[in-house]
Amino acid sequence: MVILFTDFGASGPYVGQMKGVLYRLSPQLPVVDLFSDAPRDPRAAAYLLAAYARDFPPPAVFLCVVDPGVGGERAACALRVDGQWFVGPDNGLLNVVAMRGRDVEWWDITWRPERLSATFHGRDLFAPVAGALAAGQAPPGRSCDPRERTDRSWPRDDARVIYVDHFGNCITGIDAGGLSDPGARLAAGGHVLPGARRYGEVAPGAAFWYENANGLVEIAVNQGNAHEALGLRVGDPVRWS
Amino acid sequence: MVILFTDFGASGPYVGQMKGVLYRLSPQLPVVDLFSDAPRDPRAAAYLLAAYARDFPPPAVFLCVVDPGVGGERAACALRVDGQWFVGPDNGLLNVVAMRGRDVEWWDITWRPERLSATFHGRDLFAPVAGALAAGQAPPGRSCDPRERTDRSWPRDDARVIYVDHFGNCITGIDAGGLSDPGARLAAGGHVLPGARRYGEVAPGAAFWYENANGLVEIAVNQGNAHEALGLRVGDPVRWS
Amino acid sequence: MVILFTDFGASGPYVGQMKGVLYRLSPQLPVVDLFSDAPRDPRAAAYLLAAYARDFPPPAVFLCVVDPGVGGERAACALRVDGQWFVGPDNGLLNVVAMRGRDVEWWDITWRPERLSATFHGRDLFAPVAGALAAGQAPPGRSCDPRERTDRSWPRDDARVIYVDHFGNCITGIDAGGLSDPGARLAAGGHVLPGARRYGEVAPGAAFWYENANGLVEIAVNQGNAHEALGLRVGDPVRWS
Repeated sequence: MVILFTDFGASGPYVGQMKGVLYRLSPQLPVVDLFSDAPRDPRAAAYLLAAYARDFPPPAVFLCVVDPGVGGERAACALRVDGQWFVGPDNGLLNVVAMRGRDVEWWDITWRPERLSATFHGRDLFAPVAGALAAGQAPPGRSCDPRERTDRSWPRDDARVIYVDHFGNCITGIDAGGLSDPGARLAAGGHVLPGARRYGEVAPGAAFWYENANGLVEIAVNQGNAHEALGLRVGDPVRWS
Repeated sequence: MVILFTDFGASGPYVGQMKGVLYRLSPQLPVVDLFSDAPRDPRAAAYLLAAYARDFPPPAVFLCVVDPGVGGERAACALRVDGQWFVGPDNGLLNVVAMRGRDVEWWDITWRPERLSATFHGRDLFAPVAGALAAGQAPPGRSCDPRERTDRSWPRDDARVIYVDHFGNCITGIDAGGLSDPGARLAAGGHVLPGARRYGEVAPGAAFWYENANGLVEIAVNQGNAHEALGLRVGDPVRWS
Repeated sequence: MVILFTDFGASGPYVGQMKGVLYRLSPQLPVVDLFSDAPRDPRAAAYLLAAYARDFPPPAVFLCVVDPGVGGERAACALRVDGQWFVGPDNGLLNVVAMRGRDVEWWDITWRPERLSATFHGRDLFAPVAGALAAGQAPPGRSCDPRERTDRSWPRDDARVIYVDHFGNCITGIDAGGLSDPGARLAAGGHVLPGARRYGEVAPGAAFWYENANGLVEIAVNQGNAHEALGLRVGDPVRWS
């Protein structure tokens, strides 16, 4: 299975162009759009990817493209992390999965296609590599030491809003699994929010935080839209209060 | 074939997370996104589902998640209605297909997965059940009497706007099939609209109602946007005038 | 492989209804959403289609529905152009691929389904024909002379914005491949823009044009949104300055 994690948008051509490459290599390959509206900030996207990749057991192949520096100096890489594959730009997008992995292998992708556009490496470089990995081939590149490539200075959590979903729920980069105090209060956008386990535990219209279905701290309003009600946007800081 | 009917949004992770579950169970299963922006009101969504399910003959499996009460008291259920399967929350979402069915069987889903999140039963509960039904397995639950579970007090039609599409067309919950007078006029949002069979029958910019391709009364503006021009939104009442 | 090129929107039912038809005919058929937000103007859409169809080698089947005149007088057609198939309304949408093709065959689709709605020929007529072509069947219609059907009065390029993508980049209908002077300046929306090869060649916030990954002239702002910054919309004229 290949899982797409991009900031390309759901309706434009870019996701479909990558799927075209994958299906030409392997017409029966299951392909899943996980995110097509990941944040354009590779660091925020990295925390989001690490949390949502948990849903797809090995040998899932993640084709990850949040690539504002496309065509510039950044390298292309493929990682194997505890049996899952990740392909994408070496701009921090894969750093959190590398930090958290127990068994990590890292390749610089040195292969280049016959025609490489300046602005769409997702189609020209990353999709063919993901298709090759899904077919059981080795990464077309040079193995290197993951300890030299992983930036371990990043904090365990990203204490910001990293995604706003279709319901206006605001997902943070804080892993709730380690919370010693589920009764903690979260400060966000000038508000201080209580915790709850589910929507129905608070009054309609009330804001709260909870551990979402992927283990992240998420801010919601029961029967409402937290993004609008609290004025929160991707990148806004949050902190325990 | 599994057909997804949700209010999850097209670009976020939730539809993809459910597809991941389905493809793990059955990698070659055809999966169709029917609606990913169904109304959050289970009653409006129920009329929409009943009209659009007509396009998918048995043994289609509909995975239906409009579930504002997730994690609360509502039950989970699976219905077999004239050969089609429907899986989802027991919050009214499946009531219209049950009301209209000739041959209806009803199961309460009593199976629970090893890990059940408080807020995403679509992924944890409904998707595995839909996958099992698509593979020909029996519903993992307790058969019950559909006559005791179907709420027959609901009217035949939902005389409201129940969906606004990408073009700004406003779909109502009124089944046009039973209209004795196709020349009737429809009152909506302070306007009184004539009927037509297709866009080209009225002047550019003119509003009208017509029987849409799924048998529902729909309000449109020729070469325009009825949602914007008439100020109509989901939930607004309409009536024959 | 069937490639969908429509203006139906990503989240509503219409794309899914067409996929339902295709999967019933051929459950394992790879289907790719290329555009679900093509411009509603068949002429602008025609230039967009011709550029993006390049990504899908024969025997790809393009199911193309930008059809504001649905239910009216326009014919339905199927074209074979250099090994690729195109199915859609005969309203200009396929004119650019026909103009540019070397080996073009043209059929009027005379087959009609048992039930043909007045407003959704995508589902009722074009999808079944595309499915038949993907299965290797002949077009269900009458062969005619492509020279009589192709309108060669259209210019080589459409010197307008024909699409605004998820990033706010503004794609024009100008084929950049023939540019004799890559240093030319492009006038658009009251601005005069320099050319560049990639985002990183200009300062953050600066607007420029470049040849995009499908060969079209595209207007972007490095680390910004050209649509918002320059006030450009689909249909706005551009010209070399």
